Amino acid sequence: MKAKIIITPKKAVLDPQGKTVQNALEHMGCQGVAAVHVGKYIEIEMAPDADCAQARQALEQACHRFLSNPIIEDYTIALE
Amino acid sequence: MKAKIIITPKKAVLDPQGKTVQNALEHMGCQGVAAVHVGKYIEIEMAPDADCAQARQALEQACHRFLSNPIIEDYTIALE
Repeated sequence: MKAKIIITPKKAVLDPQGKTVQNALEHMGCQGVAAVHVGKYIEIEMAPDADCAQARQALEQACHRFLSNPIIEDYTIALE
Repeated sequence: MKAKIIITPKKAVLDPQGKTVQNALEHMGCQGVAAVHVGKYIEIEMAPDADCAQARQALEQACHRFLSNPIIEDYTIALE
């Protein structure tokens, strides 16, 4: 089983890294870029017999406690 | 149109950040974690009338030139 966690800055939070990437894309000649958000991607390989509900609960807790900063970041967890 | 870019360290490359997350998950009591890979996630909002093939080509070039380090990182681009 694999868990994929995506952590992005909340929309209302200033994202200077995203702004820099946007500027770089425009300088490179890439037209029509409206906005860029830069976040983190965490891929977790779990034992194939792991319990899905239990894993999700543990990852929710981990995201809330140390993987993300819930004040300025949003996270999504996908299990597959 | 939205482009989602995921940049991860190559499997053969040491990933100390992933190892740290794995240790933290185990200390938290999360069992059965085989491996953790930490990478970057970039979401690019493009004009709705943007040309898909052209955008993909520009993003491929951007990934290769400055968004990732192709020596130690892999990237995937998804357009939707």
